[in-house]
Amino acid sequence: IPHSRTIRCTCIETSTQPVNPKSFKKLEIIPASQSCPRVEIIATMKMNGEKRCLDPESKVIKNLLKAVRKERSKRS
Amino acid sequence: IPHSRTIRCTCIETSTQPVNPKSFKKLEIIPASQSCPRVEIIATMKMNGEKRCLDPESKVIKNLLKAVRKERSKRS
Repeated sequence: IPHSRTIRCTCIETSTQPVNPKSFKKLEIIPASQSCPRVEIIATMKMNGEKRCLDPESKVIKNLLKAVRKERSKRS
Repeated sequence: IPHSRTIRCTCIETSTQPVNPKSFKKLEIIPASQSCPRVEIIATMKMNGEKRCLDPESKVIKNLLKAVRKERSKRS
């Protein structure tokens, strides 16, 4: 009988709904590891500090990064 | 005389050197805001917990995300 590994993922379910890049104050990307076999992407909302898990496969991340880049070049 | 805004950026300088996606345990993306006028990308290293600031304009981020996606599909 193999030892069962303790799995400690932060996200239980992920949201595939679009997230407005202006609505989050932090985006955390946690690569797959021994403690959790999948990549986790956690957005912290500005409004209430709520943390929302996003699907790395969805377009959300791509769009977020694009917006983040755009915002930066706009300001500099 | 305009009020000077208090600027509280986390990063003082950014590294443009390539970062091995397996070497970090967390990547934080903080959008531009009133407290800091630029996007900040902070990688936390696995080894020692050291935080390293990355340049959002560099290819580092793109490659990181690509690797993260690849790793995920490999495991699922």
